[in-house]
Amino acid sequence: MSNVQTISETAVNSDVAWRSINAIRFLSIDAVEKANSGHPGAPMGLAPTAYALWQHALKHAPGTPDWADRDRVVLSAGHASMLLYSMLHLTGYDLPLDEIQDFRQWESETPGHPEYGLTAGVEATTGPLGQGLGNAVGFALAEKILANTFNRPGHEIVNHRTYAICSDGDMMEGVASEAASLAGTLQLGKLIVIYDDNQISIEGDTDKAFREDVSARFAAYGFHIIDPVDGNDLAGIVNALKAAEAEPDKPKLVTVRSVIGYGSPNLAGTGAVHGKAMGGDEVALTRTQLGWDYEPFEIPDDVYDHMRSGVQSGQALSDEWHAKFEDYKSEYPDLAERFLVDLLGMLPENWDDGLNRLVGSHDSPIATRAISGEALHAITPALPRLIGGSADLAESNNTEVDGRGSFSPELLDGRNLHFGVREHGMGAISNGMALHGGVIPYAATFLIFSDYLRPAIRVGALSHAPCVWIFTHDSIGLGEDGPTHQPISQLMGLRMIPNLTVIRPADADETFEAWRIAIENRQGPTALILTRQNLPQLSALGAQSFARGYVQRGAYVIADSSTEPEVIIIGTGSETQLALGAALKLQEEGIAARAVSMPSSELFQSQPDDYRESVLPWKVRARVSVEAGTTIGWERYVGFDGATIGIDRYGASAPGDIVMANLGFTVENVVETARSLL
Amino acid sequence: MSNVQTISETAVNSDVAWRSINAIRFLSIDAVEKANSGHPGAPMGLAPTAYALWQHALKHAPGTPDWADRDRVVLSAGHASMLLYSMLHLTGYDLPLDEIQDFRQWESETPGHPEYGLTAGVEATTGPLGQGLGNAVGFALAEKILANTFNRPGHEIVNHRTYAICSDGDMMEGVASEAASLAGTLQLGKLIVIYDDNQISIEGDTDKAFREDVSARFAAYGFHIIDPVDGNDLAGIVNALKAAEAEPDKPKLVTVRSVIGYGSPNLAGTGAVHGKAMGGDEVALTRTQLGWDYEPFEIPDDVYDHMRSGVQSGQALSDEWHAKFEDYKSEYPDLAERFLVDLLGMLPENWDDGLNRLVGSHDSPIATRAISGEALHAITPALPRLIGGSADLAESNNTEVDGRGSFSPELLDGRNLHFGVREHGMGAISNGMALHGGVIPYAATFLIFSDYLRPAIRVGALSHAPCVWIFTHDSIGLGEDGPTHQPISQLMGLRMIPNLTVIRPADADETFEAWRIAIENRQGPTALILTRQNLPQLSALGAQSFARGYVQRGAYVIADSSTEPEVIIIGTGSETQLALGAALKLQEEGIAARAVSMPSSELFQSQPDDYRESVLPWKVRARVSVEAGTTIGWERYVGFDGATIGIDRYGASAPGDIVMANLGFTVENVVETARSLL
Repeated sequence: MSNVQTISETAVNSDVAWRSINAIRFLSIDAVEKANSGHPGAPMGLAPTAYALWQHALKHAPGTPDWADRDRVVLSAGHASMLLYSMLHLTGYDLPLDEIQDFRQWESETPGHPEYGLTAGVEATTGPLGQGLGNAVGFALAEKILANTFNRPGHEIVNHRTYAICSDGDMMEGVASEAASLAGTLQLGKLIVIYDDNQISIEGDTDKAFREDVSARFAAYGFHIIDPVDGNDLAGIVNALKAAEAEPDKPKLVTVRSVIGYGSPNLAGTGAVHGKAMGGDEVALTRTQLGWDYEPFEIPDDVYDHMRSGVQSGQALSDEWHAKFEDYKSEYPDLAERFLVDLLGMLPENWDDGLNRLVGSHDSPIATRAISGEALHAITPALPRLIGGSADLAESNNTEVDGRGSFSPELLDGRNLHFGVREHGMGAISNGMALHGGVIPYAATFLIFSDYLRPAIRVGALSHAPCVWIFTHDSIGLGEDGPTHQPISQLMGLRMIPNLTVIRPADADETFEAWRIAIENRQGPTALILTRQNLPQLSALGAQSFARGYVQRGAYVIADSSTEPEVIIIGTGSETQLALGAALKLQEEGIAARAVSMPSSELFQSQPDDYRESVLPWKVRARVSVEAGTTIGWERYVGFDGATIGIDRYGASAPGDIVMANLGFTVENVVETARSLL
Repeated sequence: MSNVQTISETAVNSDVAWRSINAIRFLSIDAVEKANSGHPGAPMGLAPTAYALWQHALKHAPGTPDWADRDRVVLSAGHASMLLYSMLHLTGYDLPLDEIQDFRQWESETPGHPEYGLTAGVEATTGPLGQGLGNAVGFALAEKILANTFNRPGHEIVNHRTYAICSDGDMMEGVASEAASLAGTLQLGKLIVIYDDNQISIEGDTDKAFREDVSARFAAYGFHIIDPVDGNDLAGIVNALKAAEAEPDKPKLVTVRSVIGYGSPNLAGTGAVHGKAMGGDEVALTRTQLGWDYEPFEIPDDVYDHMRSGVQSGQALSDEWHAKFEDYKSEYPDLAERFLVDLLGMLPENWDDGLNRLVGSHDSPIATRAISGEALHAITPALPRLIGGSADLAESNNTEVDGRGSFSPELLDGRNLHFGVREHGMGAISNGMALHGGVIPYAATFLIFSDYLRPAIRVGALSHAPCVWIFTHDSIGLGEDGPTHQPISQLMGLRMIPNLTVIRPADADETFEAWRIAIENRQGPTALILTRQNLPQLSALGAQSFARGYVQRGAYVIADSSTEPEVIIIGTGSETQLALGAALKLQEEGIAARAVSMPSSELFQSQPDDYRESVLPWKVRARVSVEAGTTIGWERYVGFDGATIGIDRYGASAPGDIVMANLGFTVENVVETARSLL
């Protein structure tokens, strides 16, 4: 490429450069050896690549790792965590040597796989393969959206790259394919994927299972392909990265042909060096082969000096950016203010005015998915950074916001995203957007397909990434699409994911409140579980308490007897109307029945004991739960002496009301079940 | 291609051919209209393709739909179910017109999406996109394995193709990418993928999210690419299919450029015709446009005659094959017998001799994953059709069987499969192998990554596909790999999938029994949940009952007091030793404590009441469960008055015994918890 500045062999291949590369290798080797656990092979092979990236390409400031306009690196091959920790330590991030020595130990900052929020400079939690590339696509997408939103002529406030470091395993994972295809479609020109093509995975030669032409595949997605470069050709790698930087419009694939376990006389190029300590003898042989005369964890001063040159130059870059931002602020004070608020993840005052106006606006039956669509329309004007879409089900999920346009390379102002039929990719990309910051992502599909993105929901929850997941068509109530599309295990399955808040609202007002909670929850993801079918309003059915102020408590009494209850009926979502109807019916018969709406068991569990006791008094043991999903988990609330109404089989293809009735979801059945307990 | 016989325009484009094509369209339109629900667009666009496939390419016998050597068709785009039902009805399968008229109604044979086992001629349950292509890869892989196993010179007993019909949505799904990449690597030459490239998905033009070059992508996987053909060019489609048949070595991609909703004046080519009834007016206009003068569900006799020509010719093909098989049987009686036994899914007598010899063979601590490996080595000699592998974790999952070789294009005798790092693809492929029959697939990964293939586990369970899923590294006990790799929700999450049997054995003998149950369970999948870390043998710890005969009951008493128990402690897998240890300790203190091993709650739930009462007497309410996973679900066994010891947070990176101890998994904590209940 004629416009690419190339660097000469002599300019990069200094003695200290190669000793720094060996320092990366041995820090990784020594940490794995001390832990007697970990993955030395990839760091050994990738050390020159990491050196080239951090020292010759990356825009970063180790002293201020949260600088908004830094380049991001996502180590999708999370098992190579020691490569990342070595780089962070050596280049001067706040990761002292004793943390490196505590690799994989209880409460260290260097867990087996990188964890966002735990270690300065770690941008994403990775390890489950393929997702990191998806995260990186999300980072690059967020950057593109923010650049388009905030940059003004002469004021490039947002202008950074995202690098993903991927292994063969990442490339095999479907989630990576999904994300890469979308990155190509959206022409995310600041995404650079570095593919460590070492021809080895755990079971040995990748030839066993992976003979595809990865470059041709990524070209088919719309990537710009850089010619593969040898993993020990330092100038070649630097120049490949520069060539990648020079191509503005397409995402790039830089393939590095590395040797796993490079430097180990007996293990280099084998699967044996992938995932365990090499053993003292082989480490000694490797020291000899690479000419590394230092003790374990000993780093020569000149290596530190060399590697930490970026501390000062990065600080200068960051300072320069802050000065530029001051100029921007004086010229565009409102935009600058919004930029800061958005980046810090704060919510503007009165963000929920639109939502507040909607509460109480519905009397007639309506689907909670439709209400969710109303909520989105009401929130986005005051919270434009709420950005998202669906995995090709926008109309069904009610996620497309009128007037916001569709984001595309031709319409960067578009704020409705189209993920395509790529649920897992959508999940990983949304997590990346959330971790990047400046945007609040939402993403939607049918509840049944939450299984497709479940791995991303889990890693997002572990990472405290505040996505809003919208799952509609939440039960057999969806009807004719049948058992392939009817969730049974999904709802309770999501509740079991730590740090995910699941809310299944029963009517319009509960749905508006659910959205309020989702937006205000910046500590983790929230899943909204919504119906396809219309639901009546609880107030219209005679409920005594109302959503506002109660949904956030997770469960509340919606119908009560004047005396102590003899029986309590608990419902969620579309089945709350049955709990309410049954309680009212039983009351007519003179039975002291209470109905409880439980939109969120997680929120209820987090309430003080006395509140929980007030809703579900310990001594009242006649209890019925009614939820159109698995019964497993409901004994938590009904115990041995209660009864669960649920579904422990697959659903059926027929109109939703018929399936519901045939599987026992009627007021009559709930009444009868409750009566049988008394 | 010079060696391809092409067919002339006049030979295919008869009047009755095109009226048959319209019959396919209107049967689909009318059924969707009557149900007021369904997907008319794809059947309308794909009718000529389906006609070409069934009438000019497919080797099938509608009267004997279970003929072993038939070609298979997997409708990966399961939402186009009416296309398949129309074809099955029109070509003479046992699917009468009244079932078509009952499309999407309670207990009909025509559910919203095709379900295997419910409808003659439906080869796989599809609808969740992408998986059908994976199933098709599994069918083609099973065919290749069986052909190599059973065919002899001059005796081609196994020789059939697998066709997958895929939509844009299928092509976007990662699972399809994973499966296609493996199909290319394994050179599955009898797989023909028909890609309905109609440029429309639910959110509109595929340009919004899907601009990749699909042909180039599949070429990169190693597919042979047939030039795209117009979806209304009948001779072109027939010739494309013939060209595909002519290429022997690579899987094929046949791209058909169809128009969704073809024939509808106002809806053709729009997302609006994808997923709902068109409405009476538009149906009338479509009838006019396509010149279809018949009443709803009226099929002219000559169309039936034309379409059912395959009933007789198919019977002849099937008869011919059976005659060939008789020859084969006389020349290779043992092989022929084995072929029949294998295809019927029967188990040879004494298949479990090897397993029986192993029971009781262990005294020392050993990981259940290692025992599972021993079981595989013991079973496969008598059950060679047990075939499988891992998603690139064979050494960790203990799934590679020595001496069986690695299946590859160069070694078709190899019986260890290498799925690559493609869990979801592995799941869908294994389901396809199980549905094909003749092989019993097993497939393995870490338990945490069961989430990656969860959609396939579910559809397989719904389909009664008897796969054995092997999930090792089943808890925080895996240690240093940390929270990204430590399952919390996965174990209980699998238990919630209907028709999946989950077994988490506590020691060597329970693991051998678990394998016996898994192999004998031919009605659905079984998941084996196994440890990374060593476990002691319950017998060595002083257990009073033993695995043989008990694991199949799901739970059993392993230590008991002489008097009625005051407290019951229930454990599973690696925590059973804690339940046992705690009970013995409490007994020493004079407390009547019982320990229960519960390897499978599904199997326990299916026992008679009196057995369950004998293990967990109703009136004993002081109960403790101990399992290193979510506590949700355990109240089923411990109620309000018991206690659960589990994990409702993420794990931690540190040596496994330290993580276990720090999170409360010690005999002391179990004893203390039990004591607190008394």
